[in-house]
Amino acid sequence: MASTMAAGTVPPKEARAAWLDEVGRRCLAEAHGFVEARAAEHFSGRGEGELAETVLPQFLAGGKFLRPMFAYVGWRCGGPESDAALRAASSLELLHCFALAQDDVMDASALRRGRPALHVRFARWHAEQGWSGSADRFGESAATLAGDLFLVWSEQLLRESGLDTETLSRGWPRYDAMRAELAVGQLADLVNDARTLPGWDALLDVLRRKSGNYTVRRPLEFGAALAGCGPDVMAALAEYGGLVGEAFQFKDDLLGVFGDPTVTGKPAGQDLRDRKASSVVVLAAEMADGRRRAELGELLNLTTVDDDAVSRWCELITATGARERLGELIRERADKALAVIDPAVVPQEAADALAVLAIRCTERDQ
Amino acid sequence: MASTMAAGTVPPKEARAAWLDEVGRRCLAEAHGFVEARAAEHFSGRGEGELAETVLPQFLAGGKFLRPMFAYVGWRCGGPESDAALRAASSLELLHCFALAQDDVMDASALRRGRPALHVRFARWHAEQGWSGSADRFGESAATLAGDLFLVWSEQLLRESGLDTETLSRGWPRYDAMRAELAVGQLADLVNDARTLPGWDALLDVLRRKSGNYTVRRPLEFGAALAGCGPDVMAALAEYGGLVGEAFQFKDDLLGVFGDPTVTGKPAGQDLRDRKASSVVVLAAEMADGRRRAELGELLNLTTVDDDAVSRWCELITATGARERLGELIRERADKALAVIDPAVVPQEAADALAVLAIRCTERDQ
Repeated sequence: MASTMAAGTVPPKEARAAWLDEVGRRCLAEAHGFVEARAAEHFSGRGEGELAETVLPQFLAGGKFLRPMFAYVGWRCGGPESDAALRAASSLELLHCFALAQDDVMDASALRRGRPALHVRFARWHAEQGWSGSADRFGESAATLAGDLFLVWSEQLLRESGLDTETLSRGWPRYDAMRAELAVGQLADLVNDARTLPGWDALLDVLRRKSGNYTVRRPLEFGAALAGCGPDVMAALAEYGGLVGEAFQFKDDLLGVFGDPTVTGKPAGQDLRDRKASSVVVLAAEMADGRRRAELGELLNLTTVDDDAVSRWCELITATGARERLGELIRERADKALAVIDPAVVPQEAADALAVLAIRCTERDQ
Repeated sequence: MASTMAAGTVPPKEARAAWLDEVGRRCLAEAHGFVEARAAEHFSGRGEGELAETVLPQFLAGGKFLRPMFAYVGWRCGGPESDAALRAASSLELLHCFALAQDDVMDASALRRGRPALHVRFARWHAEQGWSGSADRFGESAATLAGDLFLVWSEQLLRESGLDTETLSRGWPRYDAMRAELAVGQLADLVNDARTLPGWDALLDVLRRKSGNYTVRRPLEFGAALAGCGPDVMAALAEYGGLVGEAFQFKDDLLGVFGDPTVTGKPAGQDLRDRKASSVVVLAAEMADGRRRAELGELLNLTTVDDDAVSRWCELITATGARERLGELIRERADKALAVIDPAVVPQEAADALAVLAIRCTERDQ
């Protein structure tokens, strides 16, 4: 590990940022190696096998590896530097790949990290073979199955991480809850999409059940549980995780409307085109006066959202003050999250890493 | 357990049949109770939650529980009667539910066990709510997520079965291979569907990789591995499993063409309507003379297969002799399977159960 970087004259936050980058790189290497080995084991060099052997490990690259980082920082709240714990943390990125592969099918999202989504890649391959049958349908099925493999391999990587049975047994309940919540949360999301715009409180409830908890709080708690941390640490991490997770999702929603397509890898205003009931859309509806609310309602009911509608919608959201207000809510949560990490409870190195991660989650532009 | 039934004057095969039925009932109870508890834990009484709490445990009922039975018989080749091993065996039915839920989406099968498939039930529920958005699309996504939950819960039930760590550690490699093979096999199947009719040998290869191994051989080996059986037992079970698994699939394919809809719960000639390259279809093509082969080729290239086409196709397959020949192949394999079970190697009770199961797999009408 890069723990040597913590020595000397490098300021602690910068040393922690470099350490986190190294954790991310090593988690990528572990997860990538594991998927490559499993793909080689199961695909026998047939057409679809060659494709899968290339596409599945590739899918891991380009990820931010936030969840493994949070899990490993959670571990470091009570455990020593450990290759086994790092592998266990990496398993969360495979779980994330499962969710991404299948969510993109369900949401019909064509792009992921600026590249064609997995189902699009499989569909193109099918079309290139010149076969009969629907290439799109094949692409969706193949991406769903790829997601299933990531789900299976995540658990296998965790079990084979090298952590002993007793250590693992502290993590299983958290891990099981996390992966069930992923599927249950996605189902709630599909129902939510189909309903009319929810109120702010209802939206926060869905966010907490889905992305917020899943990105920050659950990975942190999972790592800390593996390390056998006591109730004080767990409580601090839960509070920090709830705050940073929500801020992360708000930031995601701002990027989904106002993000730069060349940086996010997604079309401008993608969330508006998808009519996603995201935090910034819901907040704009709550903050709008009568005239603007009527205009927002019209946009929500358009059959197709073209570039002009996206521009008008963006201006309208800004005019309600929702964009600025959401930025304030993000900063408030980030500040509060930093304050709940008491160095008397959380070891200093972990506290520094949490501070770096809170900023990364809330000040990112992709 | 019903081991008391083995006493007295009941002939051994009948006692074993009753014992197997009891194993099936208890596995259903274990799996059902586990899914019910998990669903109650994760769905909070919301609309989609209430639906899922009903539909997911219901989905388990009506299954033949063949895979848990084979796993438990495998266990009994080296282990004592055990509630923990029975729970471990039950986990394979949840794995099967995962495969059924998602395969029905991918194959667009509307019926499962004579009732609406899971995606159809979810789609109907969505339509009843009167929401905007595609009910079919929602149904497919929800059934995929239900499949994901079954996949997660299968592994959790196995891990929490009560078998100790050392016993479990003997089963994990088999279990991991089985669930990865399921997804990899389904992918190969999708590719196979898209190609022209395969030859007989290529077909047998796909069968072995997919259904054959998955239904009989892998569950048997998994149970026997948990019990720590030696190489002699494993070799006998592998050979028996390969033979009975193939015969099971042949029988499945005969039922898919000639089965009675009121018994199978599927429309008559469903496999023909789906243009499935099943064993009976491939064998008919290989056995047909020039004129009949041309007619079969025409049927394979129809845009829609109506009732008349199904009748003509069935007659043609029978006329090639493929229906009768496949029946012979099934009996040959069943006979050979019974012969490879040496009572000097496999305990008598397990051998009797294997004999009963070989007949159930090959002489069933649903």
